[in-house]
Amino acid sequence: MTTSVPSATKGSLSAFGPARSTIEANPLSKDELQNIHAYWRACNYLALGMIYLRDNPLLRTPLKLEHIKKRLLGHWGASPGLSFAYIHLNRMIKKYSQSIIFLAGPGHGAPGVLAPVYLEGSYSEIYPDKSENAEGLLRFFKQFSFPGGIGSHCTPETPGSVHEGGELGYVLSHACGAAFDNPDLIVAAVVGDGEAETGPLATSWHINKFLNPIRDGAVLPILHLNGYKINNPTILARTSRENIENLFKGLGYEPCFVEGSDPDTMHQAMAATVEYCVTKIHDIQKEARTTGVAKFPRWPMIVLRTPKGWTAPAEIDGRKVEGFWRAHQVPMADVSKNQAHLDILEDWLRSYRHEELFDEQGTLIPELQALSPEGHLRMGSNPHTNGGVLRKDLIMPDFRDYGIAVAQPGQFEAENTRPLGVFLRDVMAKNMTNFRVFGPDENTSNKLNDIYAVSKKFWIEEYFPEDDDGGELSTDGRVIEMLSEHTLEGMLEGYLLTGRHGFFSTYESFVHVIDSMFNQHAKWLDICRHLSWRADVASLNLLITSTVWRQDHNGFTHQDPGFLDVVCNKSASVTRIYLPPDVNSLLSVANHCLRSKNYVNVIVSDKQLHLQYMDMDAAIKHCTKGLSIWDWASNDQGSDPDLVMASAGDIPTQEALAATALLRAEFPDLKIRFINVVDLFKLQPDTEHPHGLSDRDFDSLFTLDKPIIFNFHGYPWLIHRLAYRRRNHGNMHVRGYKEKGNINTPLELAINNEIDRFSLAIDAIHRVPQLQVAGGHAIDKFRDMQIEARSYAYDHGTDKPEFSNWIWPY
Amino acid sequence: MTTSVPSATKGSLSAFGPARSTIEANPLSKDELQNIHAYWRACNYLALGMIYLRDNPLLRTPLKLEHIKKRLLGHWGASPGLSFAYIHLNRMIKKYSQSIIFLAGPGHGAPGVLAPVYLEGSYSEIYPDKSENAEGLLRFFKQFSFPGGIGSHCTPETPGSVHEGGELGYVLSHACGAAFDNPDLIVAAVVGDGEAETGPLATSWHINKFLNPIRDGAVLPILHLNGYKINNPTILARTSRENIENLFKGLGYEPCFVEGSDPDTMHQAMAATVEYCVTKIHDIQKEARTTGVAKFPRWPMIVLRTPKGWTAPAEIDGRKVEGFWRAHQVPMADVSKNQAHLDILEDWLRSYRHEELFDEQGTLIPELQALSPEGHLRMGSNPHTNGGVLRKDLIMPDFRDYGIAVAQPGQFEAENTRPLGVFLRDVMAKNMTNFRVFGPDENTSNKLNDIYAVSKKFWIEEYFPEDDDGGELSTDGRVIEMLSEHTLEGMLEGYLLTGRHGFFSTYESFVHVIDSMFNQHAKWLDICRHLSWRADVASLNLLITSTVWRQDHNGFTHQDPGFLDVVCNKSASVTRIYLPPDVNSLLSVANHCLRSKNYVNVIVSDKQLHLQYMDMDAAIKHCTKGLSIWDWASNDQGSDPDLVMASAGDIPTQEALAATALLRAEFPDLKIRFINVVDLFKLQPDTEHPHGLSDRDFDSLFTLDKPIIFNFHGYPWLIHRLAYRRRNHGNMHVRGYKEKGNINTPLELAINNEIDRFSLAIDAIHRVPQLQVAGGHAIDKFRDMQIEARSYAYDHGTDKPEFSNWIWPY
Repeated sequence: MTTSVPSATKGSLSAFGPARSTIEANPLSKDELQNIHAYWRACNYLALGMIYLRDNPLLRTPLKLEHIKKRLLGHWGASPGLSFAYIHLNRMIKKYSQSIIFLAGPGHGAPGVLAPVYLEGSYSEIYPDKSENAEGLLRFFKQFSFPGGIGSHCTPETPGSVHEGGELGYVLSHACGAAFDNPDLIVAAVVGDGEAETGPLATSWHINKFLNPIRDGAVLPILHLNGYKINNPTILARTSRENIENLFKGLGYEPCFVEGSDPDTMHQAMAATVEYCVTKIHDIQKEARTTGVAKFPRWPMIVLRTPKGWTAPAEIDGRKVEGFWRAHQVPMADVSKNQAHLDILEDWLRSYRHEELFDEQGTLIPELQALSPEGHLRMGSNPHTNGGVLRKDLIMPDFRDYGIAVAQPGQFEAENTRPLGVFLRDVMAKNMTNFRVFGPDENTSNKLNDIYAVSKKFWIEEYFPEDDDGGELSTDGRVIEMLSEHTLEGMLEGYLLTGRHGFFSTYESFVHVIDSMFNQHAKWLDICRHLSWRADVASLNLLITSTVWRQDHNGFTHQDPGFLDVVCNKSASVTRIYLPPDVNSLLSVANHCLRSKNYVNVIVSDKQLHLQYMDMDAAIKHCTKGLSIWDWASNDQGSDPDLVMASAGDIPTQEALAATALLRAEFPDLKIRFINVVDLFKLQPDTEHPHGLSDRDFDSLFTLDKPIIFNFHGYPWLIHRLAYRRRNHGNMHVRGYKEKGNINTPLELAINNEIDRFSLAIDAIHRVPQLQVAGGHAIDKFRDMQIEARSYAYDHGTDKPEFSNWIWPY
Repeated sequence: MTTSVPSATKGSLSAFGPARSTIEANPLSKDELQNIHAYWRACNYLALGMIYLRDNPLLRTPLKLEHIKKRLLGHWGASPGLSFAYIHLNRMIKKYSQSIIFLAGPGHGAPGVLAPVYLEGSYSEIYPDKSENAEGLLRFFKQFSFPGGIGSHCTPETPGSVHEGGELGYVLSHACGAAFDNPDLIVAAVVGDGEAETGPLATSWHINKFLNPIRDGAVLPILHLNGYKINNPTILARTSRENIENLFKGLGYEPCFVEGSDPDTMHQAMAATVEYCVTKIHDIQKEARTTGVAKFPRWPMIVLRTPKGWTAPAEIDGRKVEGFWRAHQVPMADVSKNQAHLDILEDWLRSYRHEELFDEQGTLIPELQALSPEGHLRMGSNPHTNGGVLRKDLIMPDFRDYGIAVAQPGQFEAENTRPLGVFLRDVMAKNMTNFRVFGPDENTSNKLNDIYAVSKKFWIEEYFPEDDDGGELSTDGRVIEMLSEHTLEGMLEGYLLTGRHGFFSTYESFVHVIDSMFNQHAKWLDICRHLSWRADVASLNLLITSTVWRQDHNGFTHQDPGFLDVVCNKSASVTRIYLPPDVNSLLSVANHCLRSKNYVNVIVSDKQLHLQYMDMDAAIKHCTKGLSIWDWASNDQGSDPDLVMASAGDIPTQEALAATALLRAEFPDLKIRFINVVDLFKLQPDTEHPHGLSDRDFDSLFTLDKPIIFNFHGYPWLIHRLAYRRRNHGNMHVRGYKEKGNINTPLELAINNEIDRFSLAIDAIHRVPQLQVAGGHAIDKFRDMQIEARSYAYDHGTDKPEFSNWIWPY
């Protein structure tokens, strides 16, 4: 009992609402209590063993220095609370044959998860050398936080994990994604009170507004008021009980409190409360499923307040450890130099009386093994956590049916994303239980609203009469819109890792909000490639739209194509970037992405009107190659080009074409080769990225020595970074966004960043040797045209029609 | 009155607590009410004019097509609510001579801010051509969202703005930063209900746990339940009144509700409620300041529920507009093609009876002008919002006094960040009202804890007895720690933009969490460079520590040096990156950064033990040059080098030196030039970045044709991106982190990414022509050493002492 941790009492089960009376005060019999506590002691022993031991795993001899790891790593602080929650959930799984999975927000408390996963046998099944005996146990201990071993978070190597917890903040959104369309699943999500301070976590409490009790599973949040972060108290742990209760009631939950430190009392309280929550979830689901009416329910949640580093020595050297931040990582890091500490460690290890828990072989005794669920109901073996095994390929409509007719290139404009919306609508229609679309309030803005014809936006809060007028809201909608890129990305990741498919569209500039989430997901996928037992999952498909070149009116804050740079830093094995310039190429790319596995596919395509270049056949060929010469825009057939004009992205392609037209009109003998790039990684050598062009192909396309003008969607140096090893890189002149933004028209914005047709044509003249002198007059002329365009914009607020409605003149 | 908006009644002033009885039901006299409503009509007229008009600003003639902008842009939806709040705050400023500033979370409702800023005269003072008459008004209308004009957010061009609101989520953290150490200031922060769904905003309600009522000002949050985002209802607007009340009580606030649509009732309710809040703030502050005891107060906040697009036509073409998402942007975008809509627009404009509000010259009538505060109390002219004018240079201790003695380079290790902590301690001591340190629970972990000797961590929630044992908590602490990089970054930005100084240290991998905030702040600073009236503000100083090369034990999720790539995408005018390799260089860099203005300075320095190379004089010289040859590590004196070995970053430098030593031992005749880079932008040409080396200098240092091995802290391609224009770029071979992570030892992690001494030495042999054959035996030897290092790590869990304690052997 400490000041910080009020002891658990019957009174601490302070639920409210009618179902409350069903909580038993002491639901565990004496034997059950004894066993469940013994199981927890085993967990704690294992967690401590992982952190400290490299030999003598069952302490068959007195603890000596040579049994201790040379480098002590790991986090004790969160571990006991995690295994405490885990084993009480086990009881529910067994009692109700309820499928539950376990997401540990404080993933750095992995010992508290690894321990019960090992004890239930899941670990040894996947990693047979970590067998359920002394030898296996030793290997299990030694590998933890050890070179070549496993990490101290719930990494992909952890059976049963779909949430690493390396970067904090995403456990609830991951849990929600896992629960979507899994009506029989409960996702238990432990939220650390440190993690709870992050923004992404704070808003993700709103997942309860996106779960449908009829068709979705439930999330059971367990807020672990563990008290401290690394060195500080947590905000919520020092918030009054009354405020905590108000906060979660205000968020729409029914908070149930389990608070204390005395194990027996806490086991009883937790057993009762977990059971209350599980049965409450059942009640909510039963009512919704019986009546067929999905109403916003008050889902239960648990507030679990325990001492940090629970069961550690109360004090070491006269300083508080259990229930204090000193218990966060390795409470005694100096046991190798401090015999007194080594003695304390031995006493601490032996305090769990492991000799009562493991038999002669070092195997958990049968009475305790009996507390684990069996087979796939074990949380470490639940197939939802290796979602690839449940994944079904999407049933795909033929994307060719959604294309538009393009008789001749560059003659008319269309909104690139709208037909994609129709395509996605039919993908949705054919996959109504394993496909979802996500967007931060932007699916309509991004012209994807045709989807709503098949499935509307999910909404389960209050409805108003006016919602019928185009609100597109429904309690059975499968489109998820919330103004939180974090929450959406987390939901999508959770949905994919549990074996389903999805599509996320968002504003280009604000996709940076989830840079770090992308990083973490890419890392997860990269590690999974090396784990043969992890089955393939669907790729994460991210449509980046409302792009920089059409944010002239929203201004500087909305102009940032730099997400691609972030993507390029991650492993080539898991990253793909596409910049389809028109409707048909976008459809072809989207079709490919939706069928792919284990990648993050980033598709860049603006939502506004853009010139159309390719009919469907041409688009498929072009996208399959990833980049190709546009013969119709080139005039170097049968000869060497004088200039290679290249582009990637919709507006840059239009401007590069217009520049080509200007140049050809002015210099009919100039031989220009026009290359469009859809698959950005084609620019990298094949030694660097699996999509990379061979040097030979690259040299043939981009020549060995001719000037290349490359008009790029993003920051220009990204092209250099990808292509710097290419032989003709020295002649590559790249234009792109260079952070010149203001309130503008589209052409004016292009001019400011020199990706406009006039600047490009002038660039070309500067670089083609035979034009350097002869081109003087043309430069003068192009500058005049540029000034004219600019003046018109300043006078009228729009681009001059002849520039904004430009078409390919040949 | 609509379903969505309950009408304001006396009952809606549902505050609680003892002060409640002081709210007057109808505080405004008939005249006051009439005037305040007239002022609001003027605001709404102006907001509408900005969106639609390019001529006939005072409708002196019937509205015609030629008066309408060609391209209609802007957001009506949030505007009326913003100006409503603004003018009620004006009343408080006048009544109490209370300094208040206004932060508009929904910054895209800029018309609702620009209008009152113009009406109070602040706008015309800064932009005299936007004078307070018909001509000025026309220019004011026309420039809005017009090429070359101003944006539709509260951009830096907006007088009184320190929060653009282009990217949503940061208004409360910005407000809190502005309130720090400004005891007489109230920061009114309007939170949009869309923005409220973002993660950063959701957790930033916790700012109330970081404000000290004695020394800090107050933040008055005004949650604007405007009902809708672009196309969707907002979560909070459809949350029951009871849940909203619980939520904010749970967060520690006293929520006061102002709800309705009838202007007169709403003016009375808002007037009463704003006054209640301001006086409640005064009471809280008075009590704390009189008693000298800072307790966690229940600060008041306002929940303002109004129709979206308030005062717009209720319906257009039979479809609901006011109070619905259709009012979000431009409610009738087709007035140029639809005479009926043009007529509606004219009626709508005239509904504000502007002819009663503006005189013949087009100037606001004196009775209404009298409602504005005067001089610096006008929110558009409050000096806190142009913080540079209030900024005082830091009083700096001499950083040289904090250095360590380094008799000979590379002979011993020290923790690089610890002396910085001592230096920051004394900076803090000398600037106790305008300097703050921020970190997400990591200042101790990052070895900066000496700061606490002068100022502890701020904590105003509950205290426990054990906090005395090293908790370092205090209600007058000036170190802010919260596990939310978002909130800290926002607080720091708000603090800097209101004229103060700060320092933020954070984990390298997780600084990606605030990529987008960095982007937005860099954009803000970049725009400010062009605004002569905006005074210089202190730079944002970001120490990135716990870096990739020492995250071997935390694993893959904690390894990400990619923030530098994000930084390099922003304007060279505002970005600086430093990688000091040792204690003295870190001190020199930190000193420089703390004195600088208008930049984002990113300093990369790990917290663990690192070799020390430079005494203070050498460090100052080296840092001033930004990069230089380390003569003591080079042996090419008096001759051309055969090889340039370059490095940037602590661990890469150590490994590059060790490689140099290996090579020199093996090939005594090999001439190696060793270059260390502290100031990363030195690598860019001076045409690209103000810090860039001239090509001439670069060529002299890096040679024209010798092989360069560059060992870099971050992703290797960043060096190529910076240096690709350099003449000898083709010979530059860069090593860095390439996303090869696992649980490891430091040397093993280096080996996996090939930045280790052995890989570098082998790289060098491959690239120096005279060694390519002769070096075969050495390659074999180095590989053996590498294998030996690796085997030891796998057996022992640590690096072999001879590798981990390596010193420069000369």
